[in-house]
Amino acid sequence: MRTVEWTDQNRVRMIDQRQIPWQLVYVEYDDYREVAEAITDMVVRGAPAIGVSAAFGMVLAAYQCPAMDMGSLLEFLEVAAVILKKARPTAVNLAWAVDHMMAVACDDCFDRVKDVRAALLEEAQRMADADVETNQRMAAYGAELIHDGDTILHHCNTGMLATVDYGTALGVIRLAHEQGKRIHVLLDETRPRLQGARLSAWECEQLGIPYDILPDTAAGYYMRRGEINLVLFGADRVAANGDVVNKVGSYQIAVLARENHIPCYSVFPTSTVDLTMASGDDIPIEERDHAEVRAPYGCELIPEHYRVRNPAFDITPQKYLSGLVTECGIILPPFTDNLAKAMQSIKR
Amino acid sequence: MRTVEWTDQNRVRMIDQRQIPWQLVYVEYDDYREVAEAITDMVVRGAPAIGVSAAFGMVLAAYQCPAMDMGSLLEFLEVAAVILKKARPTAVNLAWAVDHMMAVACDDCFDRVKDVRAALLEEAQRMADADVETNQRMAAYGAELIHDGDTILHHCNTGMLATVDYGTALGVIRLAHEQGKRIHVLLDETRPRLQGARLSAWECEQLGIPYDILPDTAAGYYMRRGEINLVLFGADRVAANGDVVNKVGSYQIAVLARENHIPCYSVFPTSTVDLTMASGDDIPIEERDHAEVRAPYGCELIPEHYRVRNPAFDITPQKYLSGLVTECGIILPPFTDNLAKAMQSIKR
Repeated sequence: MRTVEWTDQNRVRMIDQRQIPWQLVYVEYDDYREVAEAITDMVVRGAPAIGVSAAFGMVLAAYQCPAMDMGSLLEFLEVAAVILKKARPTAVNLAWAVDHMMAVACDDCFDRVKDVRAALLEEAQRMADADVETNQRMAAYGAELIHDGDTILHHCNTGMLATVDYGTALGVIRLAHEQGKRIHVLLDETRPRLQGARLSAWECEQLGIPYDILPDTAAGYYMRRGEINLVLFGADRVAANGDVVNKVGSYQIAVLARENHIPCYSVFPTSTVDLTMASGDDIPIEERDHAEVRAPYGCELIPEHYRVRNPAFDITPQKYLSGLVTECGIILPPFTDNLAKAMQSIKR
Repeated sequence: MRTVEWTDQNRVRMIDQRQIPWQLVYVEYDDYREVAEAITDMVVRGAPAIGVSAAFGMVLAAYQCPAMDMGSLLEFLEVAAVILKKARPTAVNLAWAVDHMMAVACDDCFDRVKDVRAALLEEAQRMADADVETNQRMAAYGAELIHDGDTILHHCNTGMLATVDYGTALGVIRLAHEQGKRIHVLLDETRPRLQGARLSAWECEQLGIPYDILPDTAAGYYMRRGEINLVLFGADRVAANGDVVNKVGSYQIAVLARENHIPCYSVFPTSTVDLTMASGDDIPIEERDHAEVRAPYGCELIPEHYRVRNPAFDITPQKYLSGLVTECGIILPPFTDNLAKAMQSIKR
């Protein structure tokens, strides 16, 4: 089971994450615009998962294009790239994957549409496979941070659902569990969309990892009581100085972790790093539909005319982070230098 | 309109707060055990409101008692006192009000049941009136902290609904608004029971106070952006050293306020102070039904078997508080000394 994959019928298949935890439903798309909508509507979410979804969206676009000449195909793909990149603004993996696919399509060595389609499909498949492999490498580094008997606080969902498979921060927790360490996970429910209570809890149920869901208001209470040994969350975009933009609420728990002397790590693949952003404050923060707060999943909690704000992400300044867990290892402070070195060491 | 009051038919009438914001419904009780259940089930909530409700519950008990001799009446009242005090464990106003009513009933000068009933009713009415007057005095002190143009972060509900009328922290905000100061209030939605999104927003709508509801995950984001000038919340019990036990999530926003150099005050009547508790860590924290998290107001968000924790309160150590706003004035650090002085200055 992968969160997103290509089918034999040349379609993109993905888990409809809005149906979890109630049912496991797959949806299939044969139009890249549907993939863009699925990303906007959070049928699929999680920075790595939307990156690979958009890559498959570019493959779909290449299959959809009616023209059989290279010039028209590239024009068609340019339009698709713009539409896919606009689907969500914050996670850089989306733009990174689309740009990468566009670069593949523009390679000089293709002179037939058929060859571009094949190359794009091969590249998207490679990205999907690489995502899983990257997550497993991250998990191997990150699991060293977890000791027998630990209780870990986790925010949002960073499991297999947020990636192609295995997960980032939740992948680290999964590996520690698979290594036989006796651990307990406290899952922030993560209002407004409840990714912790719905998606991460569902994954913990599948994997047999002991957990409890907390209202977001209670994380600090358990930190102060000394019940939490480690805080882990993912990232949607990481700036050159190590500031982490992630699901709203991450900043708060990072501050509370430092206040309570609890190590706090962000876990992400290097495709989430955006060296063009000097600091997290340069990164655009998406404001989403107020209905997510007012009536989550159709459950009407407050009247429609009540005034609401709904920022989807926040910025955790790097000073609150103990380290950054990547597939290249755990990056420690000073982050600007060490992140630059790690990024130079990998081939993009 | 009062949150709780005595009727001409010798009943206790209160607003059913579970129906707000959808409808304003009053419920009436003629049995003190129903009042205890209403407190447990949060038909009425808010430390001052449950204190006065329990006082009226004691009056009901005196009216219910079938015996006409003083010994039997006092025995009946002792049982009622135990049941009412057990309704919720954290807010001290409940035990304080019940003990106070019991002391009135035990006064040597009564020798007829009828006189005890009259004295208890008079005392409960006096407590209700005193609550409103106390709130207005608190508001006058607290409103000095609010300046034209301020944006105030507020947690849970501390308005008229949490008291007999006017409110504590929200009363301070109300008075600043009535004074013509241009203010904006950010209301933490306050999971799991959403007192901010449902009750405080409803009150702001009634009063014409500009507000926005925030998911609890977003409070830190707006603090760090510099959009918040002041943080205000109430208290359910205050220890001798100034530690404040209040709705879960208060600790987090107090830590975040200090981190962002934003003044943070707790607003409460001195009846909320419990000098027998040396620090907040001595105060019992209620754990409530997990259904509040899983299916708030019947809206099923996650499956019934998913594991959940639901602490109703947390402890804010006094070091995170800029001051304590009471009807005796604003108490500043060092809190142990200054709180003791304030408590000595009032007649209980």
